[in-house]
Amino acid sequence: MVKRLLLGEPLPTAKLEGQLLSKRLALPIFASDALSSVAYAPQELLMILTLGGLAFLSFAPWVAACVVLLLLVVVASYRQLVKAYPSGGGDYEVAHKNLGERAGLVVASALLVDYVLTVAVSVASGVDNIISALPALNGWRIELAVGFVVILMAVNLRGVRESSKAFAVPTYLFIASVLLMLIVGLIRTAFGDAPVASSAAYTVEGEDLSQAAFILLLLRAFSSGCSALTGVEAVSNGVPAFRRPKVKNAQATLVLMGGTAIVLFAGLTAVALISQVHYAEDACHLIGFQNCETTPQPSLVAQVATAVFGANSVLFYVIQAATACVLLLAANTAFNGFPLLGAVLARDSYAPKSLNTRGDRLVFSNGMIVLGLAACAILVVYRANLTQLIQLYIIGVFVSFTLGQAGMVRHWMGLLRGGCTNRSEVWRGLVVNAGGAVLTAVVLIVVTITKFTHGAWLVFVLMPVLYTLMLGVNRYYRDVETEIEVDETTAFGADGDHAIVLINKMQKPALKALDYALAARHQSIVAIHIAADEQTAQRLEQQWQEQNIRVPLIVLESPYRDFAVPIIRYIAKYRENHGPTVVTVYLPQYIVGHWWESILHNRRANRIRQQLMLVHGVTIALVPWLLDSSELIYGRRSRPLPGQERRGEPVRPGTRERVSHPRR
Amino acid sequence: MVKRLLLGEPLPTAKLEGQLLSKRLALPIFASDALSSVAYAPQELLMILTLGGLAFLSFAPWVAACVVLLLLVVVASYRQLVKAYPSGGGDYEVAHKNLGERAGLVVASALLVDYVLTVAVSVASGVDNIISALPALNGWRIELAVGFVVILMAVNLRGVRESSKAFAVPTYLFIASVLLMLIVGLIRTAFGDAPVASSAAYTVEGEDLSQAAFILLLLRAFSSGCSALTGVEAVSNGVPAFRRPKVKNAQATLVLMGGTAIVLFAGLTAVALISQVHYAEDACHLIGFQNCETTPQPSLVAQVATAVFGANSVLFYVIQAATACVLLLAANTAFNGFPLLGAVLARDSYAPKSLNTRGDRLVFSNGMIVLGLAACAILVVYRANLTQLIQLYIIGVFVSFTLGQAGMVRHWMGLLRGGCTNRSEVWRGLVVNAGGAVLTAVVLIVVTITKFTHGAWLVFVLMPVLYTLMLGVNRYYRDVETEIEVDETTAFGADGDHAIVLINKMQKPALKALDYALAARHQSIVAIHIAADEQTAQRLEQQWQEQNIRVPLIVLESPYRDFAVPIIRYIAKYRENHGPTVVTVYLPQYIVGHWWESILHNRRANRIRQQLMLVHGVTIALVPWLLDSSELIYGRRSRPLPGQERRGEPVRPGTRERVSHPRR
Repeated sequence: MVKRLLLGEPLPTAKLEGQLLSKRLALPIFASDALSSVAYAPQELLMILTLGGLAFLSFAPWVAACVVLLLLVVVASYRQLVKAYPSGGGDYEVAHKNLGERAGLVVASALLVDYVLTVAVSVASGVDNIISALPALNGWRIELAVGFVVILMAVNLRGVRESSKAFAVPTYLFIASVLLMLIVGLIRTAFGDAPVASSAAYTVEGEDLSQAAFILLLLRAFSSGCSALTGVEAVSNGVPAFRRPKVKNAQATLVLMGGTAIVLFAGLTAVALISQVHYAEDACHLIGFQNCETTPQPSLVAQVATAVFGANSVLFYVIQAATACVLLLAANTAFNGFPLLGAVLARDSYAPKSLNTRGDRLVFSNGMIVLGLAACAILVVYRANLTQLIQLYIIGVFVSFTLGQAGMVRHWMGLLRGGCTNRSEVWRGLVVNAGGAVLTAVVLIVVTITKFTHGAWLVFVLMPVLYTLMLGVNRYYRDVETEIEVDETTAFGADGDHAIVLINKMQKPALKALDYALAARHQSIVAIHIAADEQTAQRLEQQWQEQNIRVPLIVLESPYRDFAVPIIRYIAKYRENHGPTVVTVYLPQYIVGHWWESILHNRRANRIRQQLMLVHGVTIALVPWLLDSSELIYGRRSRPLPGQERRGEPVRPGTRERVSHPRR
Repeated sequence: MVKRLLLGEPLPTAKLEGQLLSKRLALPIFASDALSSVAYAPQELLMILTLGGLAFLSFAPWVAACVVLLLLVVVASYRQLVKAYPSGGGDYEVAHKNLGERAGLVVASALLVDYVLTVAVSVASGVDNIISALPALNGWRIELAVGFVVILMAVNLRGVRESSKAFAVPTYLFIASVLLMLIVGLIRTAFGDAPVASSAAYTVEGEDLSQAAFILLLLRAFSSGCSALTGVEAVSNGVPAFRRPKVKNAQATLVLMGGTAIVLFAGLTAVALISQVHYAEDACHLIGFQNCETTPQPSLVAQVATAVFGANSVLFYVIQAATACVLLLAANTAFNGFPLLGAVLARDSYAPKSLNTRGDRLVFSNGMIVLGLAACAILVVYRANLTQLIQLYIIGVFVSFTLGQAGMVRHWMGLLRGGCTNRSEVWRGLVVNAGGAVLTAVVLIVVTITKFTHGAWLVFVLMPVLYTLMLGVNRYYRDVETEIEVDETTAFGADGDHAIVLINKMQKPALKALDYALAARHQSIVAIHIAADEQTAQRLEQQWQEQNIRVPLIVLESPYRDFAVPIIRYIAKYRENHGPTVVTVYLPQYIVGHWWESILHNRRANRIRQQLMLVHGVTIALVPWLLDSSELIYGRRSRPLPGQERRGEPVRPGTRERVSHPRR
């Protein structure tokens, strides 16, 4: 019996702190998703308005102002949420705790769909901007998009340090270059030399709209502009990764991010309107646009950059490169967020529990592969068409916003009822979140109405499917939990101890198994050989005699090479003669280095194991034998797990131990 | 120690005999492949001649006669092979034993390619005949072909009794109905009322051929006609499945099959020529054929049936249905032959050994899936075009024929040198097989020359790849064998015996593992809990005290949910204090009923197992826990394994046992 208390190396808190994110690094990590949406939101907003004719562009400032207002409210709401739930659960946790399981699952399914769409939309927009700079690539749009998703997947499967400074560069470059572009554009305008976009000369046919159609068009433009809000929630999932004071720093980052997003969004919309960027849903609607069937329209960012800095200027290419990079970075965040959400869902038994086993890179990988494949499928189906993908996109975001804010309202009301001390602060939170909840709910309705028939119905199909799956997994785990619960019928007292060592040939792995079986000092022990052919059996028996092994060798004939059945019969006969006995079957198991080696080994042992495990009272003892090639396994260096740094965890965990002394 | 000799139920020989095939059943099983090729061989022969113009059809009887002669020689050769190698190994065994490893592997790779092509060609021809009867299905040619392959694969994966009488019906129906058609056609001709094919009126433009081109055309026609020989070798693989006297019965079946094939092939060619069937490689070459772009030509069999029995007569549909059935049956034989060859290759260590584990239906299944997918891929790539597929087909057959016969020559020469008694018989065998070897070698050269540029080059790419793979597998197994060989360094004497039971929660599976560990009476035993969170750990400790379990519970902290590392550290510390010790780690393992349940269970246990298996001196004891759903597993009825009946084996094996008493 072990009686000593063994102490593992304690984990130095300072070391943990060193892993945490400064605000300087947190901004690019959490903001790339939110800021990158600035690259497509103004374009989609103006495009929808253009559907009604160029005259409608005069409404653009008002629609954009509504989007900015919404952004302000949502940022304010999340400042409250971050303070109340600094654990990083985000909207899912808030909805689950305050509004119950079903609301939580709705948020979860919305977020899962949204991660897939984040990848698809960001990559599609990134490819759009690359093609705007290099139009020759237009024929390869889908291939490029799928290629980028595969690269992102591969990079994340290998493991990347998300906090590496290399990741911060594109975000800051994007902010800086776009700001420069806006300032130069506005200064030129102030001095009477307003930039003019290449599409300024194109016109579109105006339509005579009824009043209802007119309002619907404004609402649709607003809905599309709302895609600027995606990614705002990222900070609320990452609070644990911030340096102390965590909440303060997270709130500051949130405000900084919101402020930047508003400036960029408003600025881009303004300069695009000033330089008369005309962007149509279908290039052929632009009167004057040549070869509309084959030539793509340059993206809004590309047109503004061309107008401000000149076509093919160095700064134009800088802008396009930074935009493409930040968009791909935004897609990358989904590869971190998806497995993280999976882990939280697994913790709550709504997803396979393995997703919450951090050490298990294999299964995190599965999550990434699912995300990557789903994104690729959507990109292929929608032909990497940004405008169509945007239609599906923000439903999930606003479902999550609305339920998250509603949960916060419930949270504050609970505090008020519970009789908290800082009532004024709670009241402030309540008002902010109630405002946010109402506003996002209204936007959700608007978005649903305006987008449902344009493709968003798919989201309303997928979400219930995911919801049902998660609920099913939860109920299944609950049933199993009940099945294996310890109850009155649970009794100790298995008796008897018989060991069987399976010997195929006189080889090291078999002898090692025999050696270990002997070391375990079982009550009785036999070696069993399943004789598929007589010659091998006789040779083994002869060697057995020669080596003078003290364990009896039993040869079971099996002319038809069935391996488990003879053993099962042997066990049955043994028990007939010796009464109920626990039987331990020793199986050598090869450990190999290459994936393909596993095709060539262990198949028979695995099969025998599976069949014997069905027999009552049998334990399988696997005795590993490391083939030379398996040394490769040790050579692998440890890589960070996805989402690890975002959760503020060190790469190498320490271990502590305590013993519960038995009462005797 | 076990001392009793336990006797399993002896296997009644009578029961085994009852499973064997009568000649009446053997003919359809082994002959469907050979006879079905009659459905496409005459058509391809005439088609190639037609390339030079209709005048060339006058050479058809001579070319057909050459094919018939070749068939006679090959059947005679195989009669000898069956007698000399009644074990069912066929050409692979003969070549391997007499010409060495490399020749054997060439035959094996040729046969593997050929099985895939047998499926593809037979299904394509079957679909061709179905479309000839139901032209509306023409647009679905590829889908139909792939569908049939998938159905065959599914049926075989579930397990079919190949010897069932239902399988004999189509073959006999095919023989009977085609014979009837030939007789009626010839009688009508004798009475001056010769049948006239629907395509008799079409002509093709004749070409002026140089003498070389003329000879090449005749050789190409002969090569295509040689596809009538495919499947002749099937009987040589199935000798063990025949009733006694096995060799006599197998030889008789072979002769019967050869005779039938010759009659049908010659008869179909004759009646097709009489009724002036004109079949072109491209329907548009037929002058007078309407809508040649979209309308398919009816197959030769369909045209003859229409000419003899009248369009849309009942007998026409009977002929087409029987032809399609027998072709699909021929494809089915490949699904039996492929895994069988795999098992033989595995026995000789050229393929993963698991293929030779009969009980392992799973891996036999893998072989079938590979075969099915390969056939589907080829059908899709070649758009289920029979004429193009035929180009690839018979290379493999003739490689196998030639090397098999060459091996037989070596075999007989060895007997002569060894001084056998029945010299006249051996000489006869030698002459027959030498003739066969020379003739098939010549045909192989002809076939290669005439078909290489028409697509057969692919076979010459695939065969070396398979050859190299098989050789690589063999060398790998040999290296591992050397690595694990028992040598002087192999020493017994592992010492110490410490058991660790991993406890996650106080649940039945964990307690069962603990119970079994206690039953095994290890020298020392501890329960270990990896504490991912503090609450669960404290609750477990409390329950442990309450239940008053006599085993100490050690809680290892792992705030980052790494499960294996804390255990590995614990083992290292334990050994520091107690010296080298064999450590047995008990892991509960869930046994589930549905495939999807395995996604939800055991992942963490498997991960821990994999990591601990890398630690020196650790044995993993898996204690199974059968979830309620696992009872489904027991409900499965046993189905025959693929190729089992062909090898003449009973479905349920018996077991016998003997004990090698240790010297003390």
